[in-house]
Amino acid sequence: MTKLKMAMVGGGPGAFIGPVHRIAAELDGRIALAAGAFSSDAARSKEAGERYRIDAARAYSDLNALIAAETQRPDGVDFLAIVTPNHLHLPAARAALKAGLPVISDKPATATLNEALELRRIVRAAGKPYALTYTYSGYPLVREARARIAAGALGTVRKVVVEYPQGWLAAEATGKQAEWRVDPARSGLGGCIGDIGVHAFHLAEFVTGLTVTELLADLAAVVPGRLLDDDCTVLLRFDNGARGVLMASQISVGERNGLRLRVYGERGGIDWRQESPNSFVLHHGDGRTEIVKAGDATLGPDAQAASRTPGGHPEGYLEAFANLYADFAKLLRGEAAPLLPGIDDGVRSMAFIATAVEASRSGAGWTPLLIPGE
Amino acid sequence: MTKLKMAMVGGGPGAFIGPVHRIAAELDGRIALAAGAFSSDAARSKEAGERYRIDAARAYSDLNALIAAETQRPDGVDFLAIVTPNHLHLPAARAALKAGLPVISDKPATATLNEALELRRIVRAAGKPYALTYTYSGYPLVREARARIAAGALGTVRKVVVEYPQGWLAAEATGKQAEWRVDPARSGLGGCIGDIGVHAFHLAEFVTGLTVTELLADLAAVVPGRLLDDDCTVLLRFDNGARGVLMASQISVGERNGLRLRVYGERGGIDWRQESPNSFVLHHGDGRTEIVKAGDATLGPDAQAASRTPGGHPEGYLEAFANLYADFAKLLRGEAAPLLPGIDDGVRSMAFIATAVEASRSGAGWTPLLIPGE
Amino acid sequence: MTKLKMAMVGGGPGAFIGPVHRIAAELDGRIALAAGAFSSDAARSKEAGERYRIDAARAYSDLNALIAAETQRPDGVDFLAIVTPNHLHLPAARAALKAGLPVISDKPATATLNEALELRRIVRAAGKPYALTYTYSGYPLVREARARIAAGALGTVRKVVVEYPQGWLAAEATGKQAEWRVDPARSGLGGCIGDIGVHAFHLAEFVTGLTVTELLADLAAVVPGRLLDDDCTVLLRFDNGARGVLMASQISVGERNGLRLRVYGERGGIDWRQESPNSFVLHHGDGRTEIVKAGDATLGPDAQAASRTPGGHPEGYLEAFANLYADFAKLLRGEAAPLLPGIDDGVRSMAFIATAVEASRSGAGWTPLLIPGE
Amino acid sequence: MTKLKMAMVGGGPGAFIGPVHRIAAELDGRIALAAGAFSSDAARSKEAGERYRIDAARAYSDLNALIAAETQRPDGVDFLAIVTPNHLHLPAARAALKAGLPVISDKPATATLNEALELRRIVRAAGKPYALTYTYSGYPLVREARARIAAGALGTVRKVVVEYPQGWLAAEATGKQAEWRVDPARSGLGGCIGDIGVHAFHLAEFVTGLTVTELLADLAAVVPGRLLDDDCTVLLRFDNGARGVLMASQISVGERNGLRLRVYGERGGIDWRQESPNSFVLHHGDGRTEIVKAGDATLGPDAQAASRTPGGHPEGYLEAFANLYADFAKLLRGEAAPLLPGIDDGVRSMAFIATAVEASRSGAGWTPLLIPGE
Repeated sequence: MTKLKMAMVGGGPGAFIGPVHRIAAELDGRIALAAGAFSSDAARSKEAGERYRIDAARAYSDLNALIAAETQRPDGVDFLAIVTPNHLHLPAARAALKAGLPVISDKPATATLNEALELRRIVRAAGKPYALTYTYSGYPLVREARARIAAGALGTVRKVVVEYPQGWLAAEATGKQAEWRVDPARSGLGGCIGDIGVHAFHLAEFVTGLTVTELLADLAAVVPGRLLDDDCTVLLRFDNGARGVLMASQISVGERNGLRLRVYGERGGIDWRQESPNSFVLHHGDGRTEIVKAGDATLGPDAQAASRTPGGHPEGYLEAFANLYADFAKLLRGEAAPLLPGIDDGVRSMAFIATAVEASRSGAGWTPLLIPGE
Repeated sequence: MTKLKMAMVGGGPGAFIGPVHRIAAELDGRIALAAGAFSSDAARSKEAGERYRIDAARAYSDLNALIAAETQRPDGVDFLAIVTPNHLHLPAARAALKAGLPVISDKPATATLNEALELRRIVRAAGKPYALTYTYSGYPLVREARARIAAGALGTVRKVVVEYPQGWLAAEATGKQAEWRVDPARSGLGGCIGDIGVHAFHLAEFVTGLTVTELLADLAAVVPGRLLDDDCTVLLRFDNGARGVLMASQISVGERNGLRLRVYGERGGIDWRQESPNSFVLHHGDGRTEIVKAGDATLGPDAQAASRTPGGHPEGYLEAFANLYADFAKLLRGEAAPLLPGIDDGVRSMAFIATAVEASRSGAGWTPLLIPGE
Repeated sequence: MTKLKMAMVGGGPGAFIGPVHRIAAELDGRIALAAGAFSSDAARSKEAGERYRIDAARAYSDLNALIAAETQRPDGVDFLAIVTPNHLHLPAARAALKAGLPVISDKPATATLNEALELRRIVRAAGKPYALTYTYSGYPLVREARARIAAGALGTVRKVVVEYPQGWLAAEATGKQAEWRVDPARSGLGGCIGDIGVHAFHLAEFVTGLTVTELLADLAAVVPGRLLDDDCTVLLRFDNGARGVLMASQISVGERNGLRLRVYGERGGIDWRQESPNSFVLHHGDGRTEIVKAGDATLGPDAQAASRTPGGHPEGYLEAFANLYADFAKLLRGEAAPLLPGIDDGVRSMAFIATAVEASRSGAGWTPLLIPGE
Repeated sequence: MTKLKMAMVGGGPGAFIGPVHRIAAELDGRIALAAGAFSSDAARSKEAGERYRIDAARAYSDLNALIAAETQRPDGVDFLAIVTPNHLHLPAARAALKAGLPVISDKPATATLNEALELRRIVRAAGKPYALTYTYSGYPLVREARARIAAGALGTVRKVVVEYPQGWLAAEATGKQAEWRVDPARSGLGGCIGDIGVHAFHLAEFVTGLTVTELLADLAAVVPGRLLDDDCTVLLRFDNGARGVLMASQISVGERNGLRLRVYGERGGIDWRQESPNSFVLHHGDGRTEIVKAGDATLGPDAQAASRTPGGHPEGYLEAFANLYADFAKLLRGEAAPLLPGIDDGVRSMAFIATAVEASRSGAGWTPLLIPGE
C-alpha cells in the first residue's frame, strides 16, 4: 500500500489554511503532499516547498505547469487540493479536472453562483471526484448528531438555530487574513455570509438532512467604510416546514469561532458547539438531559470511524478536517463517502450566498432559495 | 419601623406566581402580605389566605370588597400586588389606583396595547407608584451589565442577541399554567411573544439603555392546532443604529428558562445567562476574557445593593424578584428607584407585542415600533 | 394558622449569618422573627431590632433576659435560633433548652467536642427539638443525590471526593468576618477545618449515608503568623470500606465557595457543585452522562418538596437554608424531618474536627474517628 | 530539507499508542515513520507496516534486526520511538542508544526505578538525545501556565491540587488495553499510580517548576481481586514548602480522562483541565477571574510556538503530543528544547512511583522522595 500523492495550489508563506490542509491530508498516513503551486512568485513557492519538505523540483509557480509536469511523471500526483483565495477556485478546479485530476477544494466552491454552476458542469463532465472542505461536517459529534436525527431521535425537526459569531473583524481589518476577506474583488459578493455564514448554512442542512427552501436575509456592514457584510441574520424555512435562524457575525467582540447548532424536534433537541466539539447535549423528550461524548459506546459507526483517540482525549479542528480527507481518499479508492460535501453542496452554498446578499440588498422579505438546474 | 402591608389579587391555590410574589415581597423583611383577593371563589380565597397565614377576615373573594374594607381599616394595606392572568391586570390596577392604592403588577402590564394606554392615563392621573415585575431586571449581574454599558465599557453598542428558549409547550398544553397561556381569551394577542418574548425585549432595552425603533417579526404557532404563537424571531433596530435579534420559543424541547443576553459594542462584549445568573462573561477589547461574578469587589453600587450573600453563595430567581420589591418599597417611602420598570415600560412592552404580532401576521417586513403619545 | 415565632441570639449589625437565618426562617411564610438578643450592647441590639422590624421591646441585650421575658409573654417565641460565634453556641443552647425552648443553631454545634457532648446530654434531657444548619444539606439536588444513592443508583459506594476551596483568607485576615475565624479564642480548635471542612464532612456523610470511621489529616496554617489551619487535606475511610478525600482551603486564591462532592460507586457516579447547585452530573454505569436538573420530573419527593420554582428558575443558598427551617418547622409541629441535622450530627462533626486537628498535630497517621457514647 | 526518519518499536495491530505516536511525529511534516519492529510476530509486524504504509522490507519482527539493518542503510532511520508495554522500555532504549540511535519513549521511562537508574547511565554514556512523552506537558496552555508561574504571576506557589480521574477500570478489566495495565508482570510495581498518577506528578512539577521532596501515599486496589492499585491519593510537599494533593483513579465511574491541575500562589491561581485544554482559568490577586484562551494575543512564545490554529479552532491531544515530537526534532537538529521531558524526569517519575507504592504498602506516613545520584 502506497500513499496517495497530493498537489496543492495556494498555501504559500503566511497562509493559514494551506498548512491545515497539509496536516489534515497527511494525518492518517494515507496521503502525502508531493507537489505544489504554492505561490505565483517562484521564490515564494520554492520557499513553501522547502517548508513542506517536498522535492524542490515539484514546487511550481504556476498551476498549469504543475499539471503538465505531474501528469507526465510516473510518480505524479493523484489529486489537487485548492487552498487559494475564493476567486481562483474555479480556474484551478477547471484546470485540474480537465487534466483528469480529482479535486478537493477549500470552501466556498467558487466566488459566484454562476461560477459554481459552471464548475458543476465541469465536474459532471470530468467524472472525477470533487470535494469541498466544509470542515465542521468532519467532527465526529456532528456526524453523530446527523445520524441520530436521521434515525428519528428528535422526531420531526421543527426549529433550527445555527450561529457563528466571531469578533476578529470588529475593528479595521489588518493583516493578510483579514484584508482579503473584506475585499469584494477577492472574496466575492459576500463578506461574513460567504466566509462563515455559509459554514453555518451547510452545517444546518448537513445535520438535519433538510434543505432550505426560503430565506429572509438581513446583512450589514457594521464597521464604517466596509464594503462587504460583517454581520448577518438570515431566517430560514426548510423543506419540511421547519423554521430556522442563522446568525453569523465577525464584529461580535470576544467571540473566537463560536459556531453552534441547535436542532429541536417534536420530542428532543441537540445542541453542539464547535469550541467544545467532543460532546453535544441531547435533550430527551421525557425531560432528561444527556451529554453525549466522543468515545461513548453508544456512538454510531460514522462517529466512531471519525475518531482516533479514546474518550477524554480531545480531538479538534485538524482531526475534523482530516476526516474529510479520509473520506476523499475513500472516493479515490472507489469507495463511497456519502458524508463528504461535493459540488452540489457547493452550488447550494453559492446559491445561498447569492440569494441572501440580493434579498438583503433589495429588502425583498421572504425569498425562495432556488437552485438552478442543468 | 413597621413593615409595609401588601394586598394581593390572584395567587390562589395552584398558582405559581402568587407565592413567588409573596416570597419576593417579604424577603427583605420590609413588607408583609396582609390581605388578598386570591380567588373569586370565596372558599378558595379563604384556603389561600390560610396558607399565606394572614388574618382570615382579610381573605376576600372580590377585589372591590378588599379595597373597600382595607381602605377603611386603620391598619389597611399600603399597596396592591397584581398576579392574576393578563386580562385582569387592567381592571385590578384601575380599581386600586382609583382608590389611591399603589400597584405592583406582574407583567405584561395589560392584555392589549389599548389597555396599556388606558392604564398609562390612569397611572398618571392617580399619581401613585406603579411598578411592573420584569423579574430579570432584578438580577444583580444584569444591573451590573447595565451599569458597565452605561459607563462605556463596550463603547457604542452595535449588536444585541437576546434569546429565551423554553420547551415546556412543545407538546399539547396541559395543566393550569399551560392552558391559559395558549388561550387567546386569557393571554391576549401574543402567546410566546407576550409570555416570554416581552421579557427578552425588556431585558435588551434595560441593559443596553437603547430603545427599539423598528422590528421585523416572524411568529409561528408550531404545535398543530395552537391559536397563539409558540416560537418567535424578531429582528430589531435600536435608536443608535445597533442591530438586534430576539428569539423566544416554547417548543425548544429540553430548554427550561434559557434567557440569555449578549451585547457587543465597538470594544467589548457582555454575555449573561439567566440559568447561571451570578456571573457574566466580559469580553475586553484587547482580547481578554473575564468572568465577572456576584460578590466581586469590582461590582458597582447597583449590583452590590441587589446582593444579599457573599460571592460563591448563589442567589437566584426569588432574590432577583425581591430586588424589584425592594425598589418598590423605596418608591413607597418616597425614594427614587430608577431601575424599577413602570408604566412606560408597560406601554413599550405592549406596543412591542402588538407590533410584532401584527407585523408577523401581515408579513409587513420592517415595521416601526411606535409608542402612542398622550 | 399562625406563624411560629422565632427569637435570635446574635446577628447584630454587621453580621452576615444573622440576616441569612432571618430570611431563611421567614421564606416560606410559616415563621416570623419576633424577638432577639442581637448584641450584648443594648444600643446595637436595639438597632438590629429596628432593622429586623420587630417590636422594640423585644430586642434584648441579654439572652437570659430574652428567655425570661419571652417565656412569660402569651405571645412569646416558639424557639431560639443561635447565630453567635462558635464559643457562645453551647451556653445559648443550654439556656434555651433548659427553659423549654427548641433550638436551631448555626454550625458547628459548639466550640469543642467536650462541649458538644455536654450539649448532647442537655438536648436529650430537655426532650426538645434541636437542629443544626448544615446549609448544604438543604439543597434540593443534594437531597436528590442522597435519595438516588440510597436507592442504589451507584451500587456500593467506593470513593468520595469532597472539596471546599475558598480564597478569601489567602492574605492577612481583615474585617469582622475574617478576624474571628482566625482567632482560636473565638473559633475553637479548628480554623478552616471547623469553618468549612466540617461542612464538607457533613455533606459527604449526608449524601452517601455512610459514616467515617478513620481519617488521616494534614492541616496547615499557610499564611505566616496564622494560629489556626487555613488549608486542610483529610483522607477518609467509611464504614463500608469506601475511601474518601476531603480538601478544604481558605488560601486558594480566586475560589469563592467551591464546595463540590463527587461520589463513585460500582456502577455510577454523582458530581454536585455548590456554585451551580441546581443540577448534578449523573454518570451511568453504561457510560451515559446525564445532567439531572432541578425541576425535572424524575426528581424524587425530597427534592421536589425542597423546590419552590419550576426548572430553569435558579434557586440558591437562601432557599437551601430555608429548607432547613422548613424541616425545623415540621419538627415543631410534631412531624418527622429525617433529613434535618441534629445533635448527633453536631457531635460527629465536633469529633471530626477534634480528631483531625489532633491527628494532624501529632502526625499520627490513620486515626479512628471515635464518637464518645453516653 | 528532508524529513527525519523514525523507527518504532511496538505499535502493532490493536495498539492505541503506536498510531498516536505516528500521527504526532508526522503532524508537522518534519518526521516520517520509515521502519518498525511493530510486533515480535513477523506476520503482525508486516501487517502493521502495511497499515503504516512503510516499505515492507522495513517492517521487522525484532528490534535488534531493525537496528542492525537500519544502521547499515544509507537512508536508515534517525531515531527510535518506543511504544511497547513498560517492561520492554529499558531493553529497547538500551539497544538503540548503544547503537547510537536517539530515543523517544512513551512513559514511564522503565518498569522499575532500578531500571530507570540504569537507563540514566546508558543515556549519559551514549550522549544521544533521549525524550519521554509526558503528553500533557505538550499542551500550549500548560506551557503558558508554566511560563506565567515562572514569571511570578501567582507569587510564591503555596498549594497544588492535581487530579486524574478515570472510570474505565471500575469493572473487571477486559480488552488488550486494560489487561496489561492490571498485570504486575507487564506494568511494573504501580497500576494506576504508574499509568496515570505519574502523568499528574510530572504535570505538577512541570507547571510549577517545583520539585516534590516528600510524599504520603494511600494506594488501593479497589476492584476485588486486582493485584495493582486502581485508586491513589498522594499528599505532596514541594521544595519551597508548598503543599500538594495528587489524586489518580481508574475506578471513578463516568470519568474519561479528567486530568486537572490547580495551582494557588500568594496572589493568584491557575486552573487547567485536560478535557477542555484550550483555556485555563486565571484567578488574579485582586479578585478578577480571567479565562486565558489558546490564540490570545497575550500568550507567551512557548504557547504560541505550540499552536497551529487560530483561537477558537480547538487543538487536542494529538497536537499536544506532536509538540513533544517537534521539540524532539529540535534536539536532533542540535537546538535546545528545554520543555521536553528527558531521562531525569524519567528517573524522578520512577522514584515517585516506587516511593509511593512502598510508602503506601508499609503505611510509612510522610516519606522523602529521594532521587538516587550517580
